[in-house]
Amino acid sequence: MSSNAAKDLLHALFDAATAAALPDKCIAQHLPAKPKGRTIVVGAGKAAAAMARAVEQHWDGELEGLVVTRYGHGVPTERIEVVEASHPVPDQAGMDASKRILETVSGLSEDDLVLCLISGGGSALLSLPADGLSLDDKQQVTNALLRSGATITEMNCVRKHLSAIKGGRLAIACHPAQVVSLVISDVPGDDLSSIASGATVVDPSTYDDARAVFDKYDIELPPAVAALFTAKPDETPKPGDARFDNVENILIATPQMSLEAAAEVARNAGYTPMILSDRIEGESRDVAAVHAAIARQVLSYNQPLKAPAVILSGGETTVTIRNKGGRGGRNSEFLLALAICLDGLDKVHAIACDTDGIDGSEDNAGAVIGPDTLKRAEAQGLNAKAYQAGHDAYSFFEGLGDLVISGPTLTNVNDFRAIVIED
Amino acid sequence: MSSNAAKDLLHALFDAATAAALPDKCIAQHLPAKPKGRTIVVGAGKAAAAMARAVEQHWDGELEGLVVTRYGHGVPTERIEVVEASHPVPDQAGMDASKRILETVSGLSEDDLVLCLISGGGSALLSLPADGLSLDDKQQVTNALLRSGATITEMNCVRKHLSAIKGGRLAIACHPAQVVSLVISDVPGDDLSSIASGATVVDPSTYDDARAVFDKYDIELPPAVAALFTAKPDETPKPGDARFDNVENILIATPQMSLEAAAEVARNAGYTPMILSDRIEGESRDVAAVHAAIARQVLSYNQPLKAPAVILSGGETTVTIRNKGGRGGRNSEFLLALAICLDGLDKVHAIACDTDGIDGSEDNAGAVIGPDTLKRAEAQGLNAKAYQAGHDAYSFFEGLGDLVISGPTLTNVNDFRAIVIED
Repeated sequence: MSSNAAKDLLHALFDAATAAALPDKCIAQHLPAKPKGRTIVVGAGKAAAAMARAVEQHWDGELEGLVVTRYGHGVPTERIEVVEASHPVPDQAGMDASKRILETVSGLSEDDLVLCLISGGGSALLSLPADGLSLDDKQQVTNALLRSGATITEMNCVRKHLSAIKGGRLAIACHPAQVVSLVISDVPGDDLSSIASGATVVDPSTYDDARAVFDKYDIELPPAVAALFTAKPDETPKPGDARFDNVENILIATPQMSLEAAAEVARNAGYTPMILSDRIEGESRDVAAVHAAIARQVLSYNQPLKAPAVILSGGETTVTIRNKGGRGGRNSEFLLALAICLDGLDKVHAIACDTDGIDGSEDNAGAVIGPDTLKRAEAQGLNAKAYQAGHDAYSFFEGLGDLVISGPTLTNVNDFRAIVIED
Repeated sequence: MSSNAAKDLLHALFDAATAAALPDKCIAQHLPAKPKGRTIVVGAGKAAAAMARAVEQHWDGELEGLVVTRYGHGVPTERIEVVEASHPVPDQAGMDASKRILETVSGLSEDDLVLCLISGGGSALLSLPADGLSLDDKQQVTNALLRSGATITEMNCVRKHLSAIKGGRLAIACHPAQVVSLVISDVPGDDLSSIASGATVVDPSTYDDARAVFDKYDIELPPAVAALFTAKPDETPKPGDARFDNVENILIATPQMSLEAAAEVARNAGYTPMILSDRIEGESRDVAAVHAAIARQVLSYNQPLKAPAVILSGGETTVTIRNKGGRGGRNSEFLLALAICLDGLDKVHAIACDTDGIDGSEDNAGAVIGPDTLKRAEAQGLNAKAYQAGHDAYSFFEGLGDLVISGPTLTNVNDFRAIVIED
């Protein structure tokens, strides 16, 4: 296979992965039947506006409502209002929108339907401190927890008990209306109670559990938070709560679904696909080292599978800036490390992109590499290891003309990586 | 499967992996026919003494010779002398032994046989600066290269041109005798020219290539080294060199062979084995994160394979000490991170050990984990994340009684990791 054909395949794999997660493509088939009463659309997340537009296009009937998305992620809608707010640090706009969302769904009847459109980033955008707390109180506690080394489960337990909308409270506000939450997951493992902090999902954890987390990590509580945990008003809804009999949460796009879509493209192109995992975490360059070792194993021993093959993985790696950081996101960092580990190894090509179309804070989704990457770089005077040391993978791939630029996709099922191994 | 049965399987997998690499087990089948003339045994590496003993046990005929091993790695032999020397930093004892090895193989006839026993660590133990260089000159240059970010190929090119014994020069000294090198590999990819710096392997690289490396990384040369590179005496032997017609290098134990032996044990126990790679590198805790993500994929989606399964991998991870370091090696560090990532996930058990029997600088080969690891730790007041932050995995697993203590195995095919996933 020529280098160009391999490059075309890499792009086709990424295109299939993002296409599978686009609201336009995946929302229609999950829309419920028209209710007797009103249909209210609410939602939060980076894809919320695009999801709202898709609902408008595919819904047969009256619609009204309000979704909150990140600044810059709005798209034109006709009947559903789109509010933009701050992410990842919540702001007043997000709080105001969250309050209006609660008002919008209150006073509904059981003949009404609430369509709740949830995607990554929803947790910060759907931010409303519990009665009596300020945003500052909430942030003080969550920052202390972040520093303490608390697990994500412990963090979520606390967050849900500091919020007026998370941990199932949004669904409670909708009661007795029917609630259908359509969820795009960018969370490793697709835990519904983690995505947007489970606004429409029951919460087994209690105030006492949250208090135990404070004690375990020796977190000092602001007076208003201490008062809340003494009064313990309105516990989050628990499994078995009858108010959730009419609540349904549906994953409409996940990292795994996107990987499966790419696997199908690989198969049709005559390559055996292997989905390694939909939830890989860890430092980008070390994750790259493992991927490189697997690619070498394929070529040396036909293990874990035989070429022609495509190794697919999803999830979200991290980049720890050791020196002064340059330009680049976790996907370009992954690829630069992969190229260095593969050291010009013949027959191996790779792509790594953020499915939201933006890798880090640059304008690219990611990049591509091939057997000639290092050689071409050297010919241009680009020292791969120097760019790696400076966390400047964007500039490296920009210099090579190997960036992948898709523009914002307005959806997000996290990172997408594909390694094509020719035989 | 009960937790004890899973633990037994983990130990059986590791035992099979080390057994496959023991000189006693793997040397006899590779011994050549008895020569007309003398048989000389030389060698270097951490397994050199154990290999010499195995040769003595299985060789039918006269024998003499000398091998150099690491301090503490000697074993009693009867006819082959064992010298101990320093590793990884070379010392005078290693240099003296290297000089004696060259003398021992000089003046042989084509009726004679040199058995050369090579294993990991041989590069430091078989250390003899080129004529006119001091050990200090050599170390100054290699340290500068290490800091420069030179690739391993570039490092080896230079090293071979600073040495009187590496890069095929030992084989040249044996000429015209027959040379059979029996090699135990602890090098990712088993590149023969990397193991003990290819003492009996031709070397395509030249003085000029080495000089180009100095220029590329702006390395200032000590006067004696500069003089050597101007004079360019005795180029290393090149591919096609007729003096190598009678030289054979045989890999008798490799990480892959050990992984295959473990895979066989898994299969016999009813588990589907998957060898991920024999050469995984990267930071231990990040490599663990990737392994955890794959284990979760197996349980969630039967990908990349269906449980009951065993995921096997080899290679050598690294541990970067961020805070003050505690006790522990890269395998126990891997396992502690794996346990934290798996977070009590049911059905998943794992072992990680150094096949040489010593993980880092403690007395254990590695450790084991299971679904109850974190829960048992918590019950004992052992905070997994605190031990991880302190790089103190040894103490963590010591507290749990979950260390694997095999004692030195006197061989080394690098790290061994197995993840058992029940169905």
